[in-house]
Amino acid sequence: MTLWVRFRSQDGRVCCGALEAAGVREYSGDWFHHPLATDVVVPLAKATLLAPCVPTKIVALWNNFHALAAKLGKAAPTHPLYLIKPASCTAGPGEPITRPVGYAGKIAYEGELGIVIGRRCQAVTAAQASACIGGYTCVNDVTAADVLHENGDFAQWCRAKGFDTFGCLGPVIASDFDYVHGRVITRLDGAERQNYPLADMIFSPAELVSRISHDMTLLPGDVIACGTSLGIGSIRDGATVEVAIEGIGSLTNKLAPEPAAQLPRAQRAAVA
Amino acid sequence: MTLWVRFRSQDGRVCCGALEAAGVREYSGDWFHHPLATDVVVPLAKATLLAPCVPTKIVALWNNFHALAAKLGKAAPTHPLYLIKPASCTAGPGEPITRPVGYAGKIAYEGELGIVIGRRCQAVTAAQASACIGGYTCVNDVTAADVLHENGDFAQWCRAKGFDTFGCLGPVIASDFDYVHGRVITRLDGAERQNYPLADMIFSPAELVSRISHDMTLLPGDVIACGTSLGIGSIRDGATVEVAIEGIGSLTNKLAPEPAAQLPRAQRAAVA
Repeated sequence: MTLWVRFRSQDGRVCCGALEAAGVREYSGDWFHHPLATDVVVPLAKATLLAPCVPTKIVALWNNFHALAAKLGKAAPTHPLYLIKPASCTAGPGEPITRPVGYAGKIAYEGELGIVIGRRCQAVTAAQASACIGGYTCVNDVTAADVLHENGDFAQWCRAKGFDTFGCLGPVIASDFDYVHGRVITRLDGAERQNYPLADMIFSPAELVSRISHDMTLLPGDVIACGTSLGIGSIRDGATVEVAIEGIGSLTNKLAPEPAAQLPRAQRAAVA
Repeated sequence: MTLWVRFRSQDGRVCCGALEAAGVREYSGDWFHHPLATDVVVPLAKATLLAPCVPTKIVALWNNFHALAAKLGKAAPTHPLYLIKPASCTAGPGEPITRPVGYAGKIAYEGELGIVIGRRCQAVTAAQASACIGGYTCVNDVTAADVLHENGDFAQWCRAKGFDTFGCLGPVIASDFDYVHGRVITRLDGAERQNYPLADMIFSPAELVSRISHDMTLLPGDVIACGTSLGIGSIRDGATVEVAIEGIGSLTNKLAPEPAAQLPRAQRAAVA
């Protein structure tokens, strides 16, 4: 079991590392491609954690939990339903979520499990898919809710969920994680708002990777956000959202109160 | 006026180049970042043209032409309506379009103008946007039409348009192009199916770049596919689609008759 991170060192380098008791051990190479442990261990206080991977795309599921489908009165889909969040929306642990310029509407959190692809895959079976999963991370699939159905002719999924900083990822990639016994807990300013079992997923991680890899080639670092369940809601300006999954860690991001505000980094994400 | 290309040389290198009468002049560096002309000119027959840019995302417009909006009975939108095609769907000139494994339904062509971003931009005005446009290319925004509304609860825009090879780009990036007098002509096995004026666009290229750059950071190589107009239709297996824009060139792709078929490269795209 490795907890992979990306971090910026005090001399400004972006590094690959793994969490240890004493801090972050630096690795040479990429976490998904022959990483080599170095002798350097950086204390956590001197490492700025970044989004743990650099996706070329984030595939974000809609309607992938039985409980939410039942609440919305929707049938379970027969194929994963998804949209694409662009790589440019990625934010790391502790980075502020920025309110889009000129948008005064509702901004929603959605706590989710993220599958991080570890190996290029195309049209793999569910049995092959497990070997293509490099690990798991926490996702806050942030949404400008009032944009979504602003136009009656076209649901703006990609726009509502694609704004810069709306794809919060981290704090780590946990190489081993037993999703069947896992739960996603989302806290808003410390108050629990979501607490749902991952066993309630309609398509399991291996099924998702298999089915989506038949649609499009998945590359190392790509993220599949598994969809959310009950309890999503709105983030007030200045509020902090924490997405916690035991065995992975806790991803914390604050909604910056003003567009383009240069906030100090929010409290460093705690890790499992 | 430069016609930028990416090409694979006979020794297997992927190079940046510009078209000249004698062939392709090789450049060092990227076309968008201080390209330097070398002394090497490769005859066209010895250069395999690739997609002219490497996008991190393709932003694909819906309902951006007055004539198509009128035909569909839709109001002109007040903000660009778009989905995201992943970078993994990119195909170059002459590359086969591959039918998704297990999908026997309709595959549609959509001939479009593509804006290629030449400079990182975030929240730029329309006046600033022109300087962020590196050039223009032809796009075939290929769509698995039967996937789109297969699920009654969720329009699958990203899936229907995101399959590998469904984002055909090329053959060049034309650094200067006067869209106001341009037309997009799409031919299916040589028969003209689309011939529409770009002046009919609802949001102009500079408006698109400005508005979309307020939603998400645009990066060099990113493509905004400006949407299509009248005349879209279905591609039979084995048929060839040509998207031609005078001043840019002609992008030709054949729909491979079988999944995963290894076809010889279709005829090299002619250039303006």
